[in-house]
Amino acid sequence: MSRLSPVLDQIDATLEDAVQRLFELLVVPSISTDPDFAQDCQKAATLLAEDLKSLGAEACVDQTPGHPMVIGHIPGPAPHLVFYGHYDVQPVDPIELWDNSPFTPQLEDTPNGKVIRARGSSDDKGQLMTFVEACRAWIAKHGALPCGVTFFFEGEEESGSPSLVPYLREKASELQGDIALICDTGLYGHDRPAIITQLRGLLGQEITIKAASKDLHSGMYGGIAANPLKVLSGILAGLHDDQNRVTIPGFYDGVPEVSAEQSAQWDSLKFDAGAFLGEVGLADPAGETDRKPLDMIWARPTCEINGVAGGYAGTGFKTVLPAQANAKISFRLVGNQDPLKIREAFQSQVRAMVPPDCDVIFEDHGAGPAVHMDTSSTFFTKASEALSEEWPEPAAFVGAGGSIPVAGYFKSELDLDAMLIGFARDDDSIHSPNEKYDLESFHKGIRSWARILDAVSD
Amino acid sequence: MSRLSPVLDQIDATLEDAVQRLFELLVVPSISTDPDFAQDCQKAATLLAEDLKSLGAEACVDQTPGHPMVIGHIPGPAPHLVFYGHYDVQPVDPIELWDNSPFTPQLEDTPNGKVIRARGSSDDKGQLMTFVEACRAWIAKHGALPCGVTFFFEGEEESGSPSLVPYLREKASELQGDIALICDTGLYGHDRPAIITQLRGLLGQEITIKAASKDLHSGMYGGIAANPLKVLSGILAGLHDDQNRVTIPGFYDGVPEVSAEQSAQWDSLKFDAGAFLGEVGLADPAGETDRKPLDMIWARPTCEINGVAGGYAGTGFKTVLPAQANAKISFRLVGNQDPLKIREAFQSQVRAMVPPDCDVIFEDHGAGPAVHMDTSSTFFTKASEALSEEWPEPAAFVGAGGSIPVAGYFKSELDLDAMLIGFARDDDSIHSPNEKYDLESFHKGIRSWARILDAVSD
Repeated sequence: MSRLSPVLDQIDATLEDAVQRLFELLVVPSISTDPDFAQDCQKAATLLAEDLKSLGAEACVDQTPGHPMVIGHIPGPAPHLVFYGHYDVQPVDPIELWDNSPFTPQLEDTPNGKVIRARGSSDDKGQLMTFVEACRAWIAKHGALPCGVTFFFEGEEESGSPSLVPYLREKASELQGDIALICDTGLYGHDRPAIITQLRGLLGQEITIKAASKDLHSGMYGGIAANPLKVLSGILAGLHDDQNRVTIPGFYDGVPEVSAEQSAQWDSLKFDAGAFLGEVGLADPAGETDRKPLDMIWARPTCEINGVAGGYAGTGFKTVLPAQANAKISFRLVGNQDPLKIREAFQSQVRAMVPPDCDVIFEDHGAGPAVHMDTSSTFFTKASEALSEEWPEPAAFVGAGGSIPVAGYFKSELDLDAMLIGFARDDDSIHSPNEKYDLESFHKGIRSWARILDAVSD
Repeated sequence: MSRLSPVLDQIDATLEDAVQRLFELLVVPSISTDPDFAQDCQKAATLLAEDLKSLGAEACVDQTPGHPMVIGHIPGPAPHLVFYGHYDVQPVDPIELWDNSPFTPQLEDTPNGKVIRARGSSDDKGQLMTFVEACRAWIAKHGALPCGVTFFFEGEEESGSPSLVPYLREKASELQGDIALICDTGLYGHDRPAIITQLRGLLGQEITIKAASKDLHSGMYGGIAANPLKVLSGILAGLHDDQNRVTIPGFYDGVPEVSAEQSAQWDSLKFDAGAFLGEVGLADPAGETDRKPLDMIWARPTCEINGVAGGYAGTGFKTVLPAQANAKISFRLVGNQDPLKIREAFQSQVRAMVPPDCDVIFEDHGAGPAVHMDTSSTFFTKASEALSEEWPEPAAFVGAGGSIPVAGYFKSELDLDAMLIGFARDDDSIHSPNEKYDLESFHKGIRSWARILDAVSD
């Protein structure tokens, strides 16, 4: 009998316990972007460190200027894997659209099977725990892991990871390994696992336009006083041209054209844009008018307005000229786009549109470049084979529209290649109300990691 | 001794009691635009009706589909005056900018004298009570008023007055009189009273752009899914051209040019735009580039964005594509601009900018035309003389940028001319945090009405 079989059996036999352990983590509202929840981030970190210790790891909670990092080591034979996940979660608003309390996890029966319903169930607590549970099953059956593992959990992924790079530099020697594993992505199809080959970068910017020293009555001041919402609308509307191209000077510098080979491989994936958009009530790809849908989300950079607030937003009406207005804007970056140059060009473009009577204040929310994986490594081949054995369909090498800056930082700060494998599904509603993680994702995710641990440790 | 002197003495002697009575009204959070405060609107109406009864009026609270009206009659010799005020108030947000609780009225010492601090102290509960207190003093000293008075208090002025026109039609016979008096405006200068000769109309529109069926993750959907904040920004930025003219087709139909005579009279008022804007931290008139500052607020129509909301507005960052985005927009109208035609043209312009993948929903928030007063009536001459006796500087006939639709409706529904006189000051922060009403405004306001009652009843 292989060393893997009893591990898989153990996973199947103890799935209920694994779900209960995940629930203990899901009840903690570790929303990293909101300072009100700092204690909860601390609590989630502590829970995880205790859990790693229960596996026999030397583990601790490391404080940072922001939310703490969790780090844990289990030595073993070569290779040495560095596993990354994040325990922080997105805010829950609009809270009124949740059917249940976001931090009261539930196992629900749905027409598509059982799901774990809670904020963070998919992004990323549930995913993070798939690897931890795989290790737990290995240890339960063999008393040890088949290779060395360093666990590394972050608590600021959803808020721009301000402490990450300084931490990686400080702990560079502790975080050495042969490859980084990151579990924060999705399946390609319902039954088809995926390994990510490229990630878009992310630049987050917040702008606040300030006009009068207080809110004004539009009857008294309307038509003569500067309205920051008008200024802001002009700025936001000016970010794209009528072909939906971003207007910031130099924005497309370093954006590579998709190669014929890449294009052919992506065409073979038979991406159905109509079905993808139809699931969320849309029909028409809204990106650059001359690009293919899959290019829009994998290969092309974007500029999106993520939030606008100013003036009266309550029920009814208030004829106010607000004193200020605010917008949050994010850019997804590809190829060799330089986030810092783009930030500078963006801020110059905004400043040029602010009239003398108004001020603009910028706030930074992260700036990470795009990442392209080195798929020639044998880790990729072995992991792909292991995943293909677990799932009904073979693993796919795919791009990803999201941004997981840590993958880039592992390379730039630690010279560590990253392999991104995750089990989320498109309908998980991450960052949205009613987030869920399929029990199947959780179960087969644990089994997948057990298989990968086996495969790479051959 | 004149019949007026003892009334003025009575007002001076009982000012403290009058302030206490006003406080009883100010503690009631009668925010009409928010349904959560419907009971408080009812309570404020009941308080007022009881107070009118204590003056000997036949008074009642009349229910409407919205908030109730208060009506009270005190018969007397000719003429018969219909006095209007509103007991509803604006919302209090941003609540964090208030130094005290907005519904815990306080008499505060300030470098500029004593002020009554509370939401509604100036707009319009304090102003409304100046007239009631003047009547109370007349009755205290003479057992009767010098003329007939009908009191008419509305509770929906801050929320578009949806019940007003149907009510005026239903109660047309009860609301007959020789002139309507409206106390909801301001002094022209610190020591200079004003009678309004024209008011801008108001059209309120709310638009909601709906895109996806739920909030989306910008990593998964950014660059391919329609972003309602982008659509909304384009619509809002397109409302003005680069000369700050409103772009809606036909918008300027019916806008009269300011006559040479009117322009000369306004020039004589020596309006200091720098000082007016300087008080709120601004410097540059932001209206149509080819217009004089006073024209911008009295003679020209405007389009202002009063609120925008969509996506993540909390602390930090969230890379979301929101499912919808919302804006509240108001238009101040002048001359013969037709609010209903403008509403239609606005909605057409918006619809044309909404892509097929999005929907737009419109919500109406009032539509009233501009009003021009007939200042040839002797009421205006007599009131002007009475005001000039009370205040250090003579009364001014002035325009007003605000909109008090009831003045237009008194004319169109009851054929009743309206005379608008009020005692608010520019720094009262109406519709803003820390609203106040100078004790002097309240005191001299009461005395002003006592003088006007005397003058028009000669």
